[in-house]
Amino acid sequence: MNIENDLFLRACRRQKVERTPVWVMRQAGRYLPEYRAIREKADFLTMCKTPELASEVTIQPVEIIGVDAAIIFSDILVIPEAMGMELEMNEGKGPVFPKPIRSAEEAKGLKAIDPYRDLKYVMDAIKMTKDALRGRVPLIGFSGSPWTLLTYMVEGRGSKNFSQIKKMIYDNPRLAHELLDKISRAVADYLSAKIEAGVNAVQIFDTWGGILSPSEFSEFSLQYITKVISELKKKDEPVIVFAKGVHFCLQELTASGADVLGLDWTMDLKSVRDLTGGKVALQGNMDPCVLYAREDVIRKKALEVMESYGNGTGHIFNLGHGILPDTDPENLKALVKFVKEESPRFHK
Amino acid sequence: MNIENDLFLRACRRQKVERTPVWVMRQAGRYLPEYRAIREKADFLTMCKTPELASEVTIQPVEIIGVDAAIIFSDILVIPEAMGMELEMNEGKGPVFPKPIRSAEEAKGLKAIDPYRDLKYVMDAIKMTKDALRGRVPLIGFSGSPWTLLTYMVEGRGSKNFSQIKKMIYDNPRLAHELLDKISRAVADYLSAKIEAGVNAVQIFDTWGGILSPSEFSEFSLQYITKVISELKKKDEPVIVFAKGVHFCLQELTASGADVLGLDWTMDLKSVRDLTGGKVALQGNMDPCVLYAREDVIRKKALEVMESYGNGTGHIFNLGHGILPDTDPENLKALVKFVKEESPRFHK
Repeated sequence: MNIENDLFLRACRRQKVERTPVWVMRQAGRYLPEYRAIREKADFLTMCKTPELASEVTIQPVEIIGVDAAIIFSDILVIPEAMGMELEMNEGKGPVFPKPIRSAEEAKGLKAIDPYRDLKYVMDAIKMTKDALRGRVPLIGFSGSPWTLLTYMVEGRGSKNFSQIKKMIYDNPRLAHELLDKISRAVADYLSAKIEAGVNAVQIFDTWGGILSPSEFSEFSLQYITKVISELKKKDEPVIVFAKGVHFCLQELTASGADVLGLDWTMDLKSVRDLTGGKVALQGNMDPCVLYAREDVIRKKALEVMESYGNGTGHIFNLGHGILPDTDPENLKALVKFVKEESPRFHK
Repeated sequence: MNIENDLFLRACRRQKVERTPVWVMRQAGRYLPEYRAIREKADFLTMCKTPELASEVTIQPVEIIGVDAAIIFSDILVIPEAMGMELEMNEGKGPVFPKPIRSAEEAKGLKAIDPYRDLKYVMDAIKMTKDALRGRVPLIGFSGSPWTLLTYMVEGRGSKNFSQIKKMIYDNPRLAHELLDKISRAVADYLSAKIEAGVNAVQIFDTWGGILSPSEFSEFSLQYITKVISELKKKDEPVIVFAKGVHFCLQELTASGADVLGLDWTMDLKSVRDLTGGKVALQGNMDPCVLYAREDVIRKKALEVMESYGNGTGHIFNLGHGILPDTDPENLKALVKFVKEESPRFHK
C-alpha cells in the first residue's frame, strides 16, 4: 500500500523532504486522556496482547496529535516473556521478572521463539493497525536491544546500580555472551516478522547501553545490535537505533548498519551530524521536560533543535526520550504544529 | 604542616610522581564495617555535625584501606540547610527538603551564610582531622556545585525526571539565575573557609550537570562553577570538578579554572586527555561495579584504566562514581594495593 505521508521514511533514507517529520517516543501513552480511558478497562499487558486495543492506542496520536508516524503499541519485555520468563506488570512500579536469570542453570529454561506463534498478537495488532491507518502515515515496529533485554532479564526490574548484570559481565562474560547470542536471534526474528506483518521501519531501543564503559559497550551491546541489523538488512525497511546515553560510540554506531541514530538531549545535533558525516539520519532530541514549559519556550527550544541540525534532509524531529506521563497533550500538539510550520525553511 | 605522602597533590598539579595516587569517592562510607559501627550510634546528620565522629570516619579509609588522600566526611546539603532550609535525613530514602523552593516567594527565606558561624562544625571537623592525620596524607574538602544544590533545593529530593527544576529554568530562568548567584556566593565562601581551616584541595561535585543539554549546562551550571573557582583561585589549593555525565562540555570545563576533571566510567581517559591537551589532570574512572567482581577482574579493569591514561603524571586513580554500600572492603583494599604496585611503570 502506498503511504500518503511518507516524510518520515524519506528522512530516514536522507531523501529530499518538504518539511521535517515529527513523532515522539511513547506517543501512545498515559499523557493522553483517550489512552487512559482504554487503560482503565484493561491492564498494560492485556492492552499489548489484545490487537484491537493495541491498534486503537497506536492510532490515537496520529489522529489527535498529528504526528508523521505511528509506532505499534507494545513493550520491549514481550520477547523475554515469549522466551519463557514470567512477567509481572506491577501498578506504579513497572514491569518485574520475579525469577531473574543469573546463572547458567537459570538460563536453561530460555527457549528460542517463533514470533509468528509466540508473539502472534503483535503481528495481528500490526495488521489491524495497517488496515486502520489506510496508508496515512508509516508504522514503526520496535524491539529492545539484546543488551537492554538481557539487563532486564538479569536485574529482574529497573535498577539504580545494575549490580547483577555487571557481576555477570565481569565474572561470567561467557554466559552473558551466550545469552546475548540467543536474545539477538529472537530480536532479529521478531523484527523480521514485524516487517513481514507490515511495519515500514523498525527502532531498536538500547535504553541501558549508556551504563557501560566504551569498551564494554562495544563488546556487549554494539556487537549484537550490528548482528541484528545485518539480518534485517535483507529487507528494505529503515532501521533506527536509539542508544540512550551512548555519547562515546557514535561513530561506531554509525557503522552498525543503522539508517538513523536516535539521540538524547545531551547530544548536540550539529556536532553529531559533523561526526557521522551524513552517513546516517538523526532523530531527536528535545528534552521531554521542555513540554512542561510555556508555549513560547517550547517553540524557542524546538527551533534550537532544528537550527542545531541545520539545513537539508536527514532529521526526524523527536524528543530525546519518551514523553512524560504528566505532559499536557496541548503542549505536544503545539510542538507538532510548530515543527510542521517552521521546518519547511530548512528544506528549501 | 608538611604532607608526608603528597602524591595526590603533585598529580593534581601535574608534577612528577613516582606512582599514581588513589582514593575513592564515598570512601568514608557504609561499605566499611568500622563506619557502620559508628553509624549505628548516630544518624547521618549527627555524624556530619559532630566533629569527633566526622573526623573518625574520615580517617578510617586512610588507615584501613591505605588511600592516598582523605576527604572530610560531610554532605553537600549542609549548605542549603545553613541557608535556612529544613533538611530531613530519611532512613533508606535519602535526604529530603520537605519545603522545596519553587517560587520567588519561597526563595525569600534563603539567607547568605557565614561559614565560620553557620558551618562551624565542618571547620572544627577539618581542624580535628588535620591534627589526627598528622600530615600523613592530604585532606580534601568538597561542595556540591551551585546547579546541583539548586536542583536538590527545587526538587526537594532525588528525582527521576527533574521536572520541577526544569520547569524553573524554562519558565522562570531569572529566578533560577538569582538563586544560582546566591548559592555560588555561599559555595565560594564555604570552600574558602574550608581551605582556611586546613583542607589541601577541594572537589566540586556537579552530580546533576548531566541532566542538562549542552547549552543549558553552560548557562546554568558551568558559568557558576567558573565563578566559584575564580574566587578560590586567590588560594593555592587545587580544585577538582567532578561533573557526572557531562561528556559534552569537557573542553569548556577545562577552561573553568579547574586543576583536575573527575570523570565517570563512560569517558575514555585517553580521548579526554587528548581533548584537554594536558591542561588539566584527570581523576577516575573505574566503574564502581567492578568492585563486585573477582580480584583478577578488578586487577584487569584497573590496569585498563591506567593504560588508558597512559604514561606520565596528571592521573589520580578513582572510581567513576561513589563506592557502592554493598562492596566488600577487601576488594577495595586489593584495588588500592594493585594501583600502588602496578602504577610506577607509568611514571618512569
